[in-house]
Amino acid sequence: MEKNTNIRVSLPAVCIVWQISMIILFGIFIRYDAESDAHWLEKKPKNISAIENDFYFRYPSFQDVHVMVFVGFGFLMTFLKRYSFGGVGFNFLIAAFGLQWALLMQGWFHHLGDDGKISINVYSMINADFCVAGCLIAYGALLGKVSPVQLMVLTLFGVTLFAVEEYIILNLIYAKDAGGSMVIHTFGAYYGLAISWMLYRPNLDQSSRLQGSVYHSDVFAMIGTLFLWMFWPSFNSAITEHGDGQHRAAINTYLSLASTVLTAVAVSSVFQKHGKLDMVHIQNATLAGGVAVGTAAEFMLMPYGSLIVGFCCGILSTLGYIYITPFLEKHLKIQDTCGIHNLHAMPGVIGGIVGAITAAAASESVYGTEGIKLFKFPPAQQGGHQAGALCVALCFGIGGGILVGAILRLPIWGDPADDNCFDDESYWEVRVFSSLHWKRTLNPCAILDDPPLTLTCYSYHDKGG
Amino acid sequence: MEKNTNIRVSLPAVCIVWQISMIILFGIFIRYDAESDAHWLEKKPKNISAIENDFYFRYPSFQDVHVMVFVGFGFLMTFLKRYSFGGVGFNFLIAAFGLQWALLMQGWFHHLGDDGKISINVYSMINADFCVAGCLIAYGALLGKVSPVQLMVLTLFGVTLFAVEEYIILNLIYAKDAGGSMVIHTFGAYYGLAISWMLYRPNLDQSSRLQGSVYHSDVFAMIGTLFLWMFWPSFNSAITEHGDGQHRAAINTYLSLASTVLTAVAVSSVFQKHGKLDMVHIQNATLAGGVAVGTAAEFMLMPYGSLIVGFCCGILSTLGYIYITPFLEKHLKIQDTCGIHNLHAMPGVIGGIVGAITAAAASESVYGTEGIKLFKFPPAQQGGHQAGALCVALCFGIGGGILVGAILRLPIWGDPADDNCFDDESYWEVRVFSSLHWKRTLNPCAILDDPPLTLTCYSYHDKGG
Amino acid sequence: MEKNTNIRVSLPAVCIVWQISMIILFGIFIRYDAESDAHWLEKKPKNISAIENDFYFRYPSFQDVHVMVFVGFGFLMTFLKRYSFGGVGFNFLIAAFGLQWALLMQGWFHHLGDDGKISINVYSMINADFCVAGCLIAYGALLGKVSPVQLMVLTLFGVTLFAVEEYIILNLIYAKDAGGSMVIHTFGAYYGLAISWMLYRPNLDQSSRLQGSVYHSDVFAMIGTLFLWMFWPSFNSAITEHGDGQHRAAINTYLSLASTVLTAVAVSSVFQKHGKLDMVHIQNATLAGGVAVGTAAEFMLMPYGSLIVGFCCGILSTLGYIYITPFLEKHLKIQDTCGIHNLHAMPGVIGGIVGAITAAAASESVYGTEGIKLFKFPPAQQGGHQAGALCVALCFGIGGGILVGAILRLPIWGDPADDNCFDDESYWEVRVFSSLHWKRTLNPCAILDDPPLTLTCYSYHDKGG
Repeated sequence: MEKNTNIRVSLPAVCIVWQISMIILFGIFIRYDAESDAHWLEKKPKNISAIENDFYFRYPSFQDVHVMVFVGFGFLMTFLKRYSFGGVGFNFLIAAFGLQWALLMQGWFHHLGDDGKISINVYSMINADFCVAGCLIAYGALLGKVSPVQLMVLTLFGVTLFAVEEYIILNLIYAKDAGGSMVIHTFGAYYGLAISWMLYRPNLDQSSRLQGSVYHSDVFAMIGTLFLWMFWPSFNSAITEHGDGQHRAAINTYLSLASTVLTAVAVSSVFQKHGKLDMVHIQNATLAGGVAVGTAAEFMLMPYGSLIVGFCCGILSTLGYIYITPFLEKHLKIQDTCGIHNLHAMPGVIGGIVGAITAAAASESVYGTEGIKLFKFPPAQQGGHQAGALCVALCFGIGGGILVGAILRLPIWGDPADDNCFDDESYWEVRVFSSLHWKRTLNPCAILDDPPLTLTCYSYHDKGG
Repeated sequence: MEKNTNIRVSLPAVCIVWQISMIILFGIFIRYDAESDAHWLEKKPKNISAIENDFYFRYPSFQDVHVMVFVGFGFLMTFLKRYSFGGVGFNFLIAAFGLQWALLMQGWFHHLGDDGKISINVYSMINADFCVAGCLIAYGALLGKVSPVQLMVLTLFGVTLFAVEEYIILNLIYAKDAGGSMVIHTFGAYYGLAISWMLYRPNLDQSSRLQGSVYHSDVFAMIGTLFLWMFWPSFNSAITEHGDGQHRAAINTYLSLASTVLTAVAVSSVFQKHGKLDMVHIQNATLAGGVAVGTAAEFMLMPYGSLIVGFCCGILSTLGYIYITPFLEKHLKIQDTCGIHNLHAMPGVIGGIVGAITAAAASESVYGTEGIKLFKFPPAQQGGHQAGALCVALCFGIGGGILVGAILRLPIWGDPADDNCFDDESYWEVRVFSSLHWKRTLNPCAILDDPPLTLTCYSYHDKGG
Repeated sequence: MEKNTNIRVSLPAVCIVWQISMIILFGIFIRYDAESDAHWLEKKPKNISAIENDFYFRYPSFQDVHVMVFVGFGFLMTFLKRYSFGGVGFNFLIAAFGLQWALLMQGWFHHLGDDGKISINVYSMINADFCVAGCLIAYGALLGKVSPVQLMVLTLFGVTLFAVEEYIILNLIYAKDAGGSMVIHTFGAYYGLAISWMLYRPNLDQSSRLQGSVYHSDVFAMIGTLFLWMFWPSFNSAITEHGDGQHRAAINTYLSLASTVLTAVAVSSVFQKHGKLDMVHIQNATLAGGVAVGTAAEFMLMPYGSLIVGFCCGILSTLGYIYITPFLEKHLKIQDTCGIHNLHAMPGVIGGIVGAITAAAASESVYGTEGIKLFKFPPAQQGGHQAGALCVALCFGIGGGILVGAILRLPIWGDPADDNCFDDESYWEVRVFSSLHWKRTLNPCAILDDPPLTLTCYSYHDKGG
């Protein structure tokens, strides 16, 4: 049965109406903060020079995070043979919307001045990108199975939930979470998995011919992998306090990720015939160490501690791709296209646990009398707060996902039929395909389960027949 | 009729002779400036430390701009099915030449010392990259229809014109143009369009089989799109004064671009059957907001103002791709391969107008007594100067383009015949194609209008026949 | 004869055991340095603020170098039609291992404290990436002909040799080598060439059908080229002293690379029929100027001097691809897949010589009384030391390569047979290929020497036959 994927009214309507709402809300609420306002020149302290504007100490990190959000996540999702446009294109769309909404939501919770205005600066931009990352993770579970309108709804609610959850974790519970193992990854992944569970498609195997990759789509995905991998130290250090904490967060993440690569390769090889490597593992599991070191990145985790975290996550994440993803689909009815359970959910939870343990084990001898002030509470108590924060992230993710999933089940969103998933033709003008009309019935090549992208024979027979 | 595309003499001659000229002129004129000269250590003020060298506050922006020029523009032009080498490769060639010539031209106008020497530093490198960007925009209109020798000529004259125009706008008219809406985009786009008008090819439809994209070439182009989109905040803030202005320019550009994505998607969807998106719009129109906010990026445009600019440009630019580009080709004899009229020309003009209006509306209450000194003149007068600058950019673009177009019409440059455009085989060793000689007559697949890149059938029949 | 490429035991074993060793050694030796330790807050001088942490002045350069190592080298090696996974994937693996080992090896030689601990910071991370780059260069010569286990061994020994060689050159001979023309490029290239000589395969032409590129693999390789080209100024300036030297190193590299592009294009064009360009030259020879300016980048080479260096190297490197690579294979039995002899070996040696000459020609009038202290010795003597350093790099490269090559000849590493080289199927699950089993005998298309990646006919006949 062909479902109606016509989004010619709904998508433009959502984009235009929501963008106009953003303009109105920005007009009412959003202003430049002191350092980005033209009054800074006269109001800044006299002993501060222009080059001490925080812009110079945050902007390089911001750009790295920005690349991760748009190129990293975007290209990581181009791996499907015929859903590369949707992977990178819808990622682009929802990130561009989400960051605006995030500036508002996070602003209301964190940066609302006495005058009722939200002040934004480069720090807000990093946080908005972080918030968006949560929704992009959720998109990974749903890749190829939802319409762009559904993704916009997912993002609207996702950013809202994120901002509340983040406020509770950082400002009420006083947990630390520099790289967002809990706030971003755990929340985002369970949010996406819960939605995927709500949108379960029992006949998804009808589009199994499109569920794999082709050679070059795997190379495209490596662009995403590598930009995520390289810039993850910036991600985990972008919003920490200036000084040694930021420096340490970069080092810890760098080391954890290096370690993950080796164990991901090892497990990928040992579980396959002749020890051949699987591109899916290399593209994804190599990143798990960055997720898992997120909470504790700024702590005194020690270099070897970072290596251990990465070591374990590389193994666990790769095993997840081999065993857990099929299990989730078969027994729990959770279809997880990109395997975000292995890349974000499990490592995120581990990251939260590592953070709780290392916070609980903190001592003045290791951190110094000044350094220990990183934590609001004494070590044991701080550890408890960290563990509590992890529960909050889990609850918001699962609860929010079920709620939003229920909304997305309404038959109004233009989502594709089961045999039409993972196919860019649903939402994109794909010139070659369209012009040939995929005449499978007339075409001797059509007995293929797995039609290749380049249609030499097809087109020949079409024209000659 | 097959034209002679042999450039075995002309291209090497141009490259070698011009490069030797560069060496001689650099030997005569170019020196390190104070901060990059080894005497800095003893000459710098005592209270300045090594880390206050301007290198540290400009270089990250420079690298972002550098990526935009080489990867951004380069990959954006890989979208054609068989002109990806020419897109990224000639972009590389002319940018590498242009930046050298720009250092000289801009140096003579802006940085000539009393000793007759030009001092260069990281700031000069950013400006040289900016200057090159103007020529790369012009290349977009001509993509696939000119020889690399013509592109070198285009760049030589383009950089020269740019430097004069920039001098008039910034140093004689005292207009502000941080992100170059007028100086770079308006000039570059009309320069390219005027050349394209001069080089009009009435029979270009003879190579229409090659004028489209294939699936993976569209994904390559998204690399260019995203790197341009992500780093545009750096572009618009790279050469502003340090401090709040630079900070604000980044925020405004970030917001304007986000807004553009939503309206470009909306218009793309609403004008197509079933609301399907067109990759051409996503690749290009999503960037229009960055162009249009260029002039006013450092002004107190306000966050909602940036969103409004992006909103309008996303709509206008996408409509341009749907209606104006075909109109220009049919009625004005302007063939614009990449649609630079929609991405650079119109948004550039809008950017100039927005700049003039916001400058005219500036007030001390908004900018503060120090901040208002950003402008040389009182608001109303500054607005007039801004408008005048826009006219200068337009005149230089159109006039210069007609002049250079006339030169490029000479039959000595090795440009391709009408049925040979958009084909890398003219100027590149393309191994697969060459080895098969495209034996269309012998080949049953050859009745195809649209020969795919991968030549399975072809090669089979060639060998077997 | 099919060799056994089963690495299901050896690769996982090497990865796991070595990674555990890293954890143990890091636990014993590696600590945060003062600026990344939580005690910094209380121990730092009072007049130093948090934003003066060296992190802020090294980290942007580090990230650029990081991109060069993983995306630059990785994607440059995707050019082969069926070895893109191996190119980017094994590059990823050995870089991730190498950087850990480099932190240890370089730490023991350079940063060992009185307490027997190695202190690491962002500076160490840059140096570790540099060290890894040497091994990745060596991989270029061996691309497609070795197993990942062999690459791990190559990296283990390569990093070890590198650290010793670097210590001799920088700390015993007191030569300067900011961008590593000698330490990284000369060493790395001759190390790889010597190994390739030891592993000579007389019947490599049996896999000649796979030794070329396809259209899109060449575009992928341009991603690598451009990121190397753009960020090379960061590479050559990343570890110089803060101040004018770092600024100057970036300018010199920027100029040298620009010049190289023009001469590489010129030579590529003049040596081919109809002046057509060869993608191999554009991908590789355009980078030679960055290598050759490495040693002298921080010296007062002068802008025109940089252009001259780039000019010569562009010509020489392209000629190398045309004449020297075939000569080396035919007469010296050195098979150099990526042509590292032309991109790294020759330009590296030139870089060492340029460094020696410019150091010997240094004078107080050019450098100033403070600036001249850049050099440990008086000019003439310093020139001699520079020349000596070049010899050390050559000896370590060739000697080390012969030694390691002998180890890699042992028949235990799972390397591919001669007719199986350059084929990702040996070490990767390549879905399309595998599922069809490459049934050449049953397939009328199979008479092709050059099977294309997309297997339309193949698969049709397989299924229908």
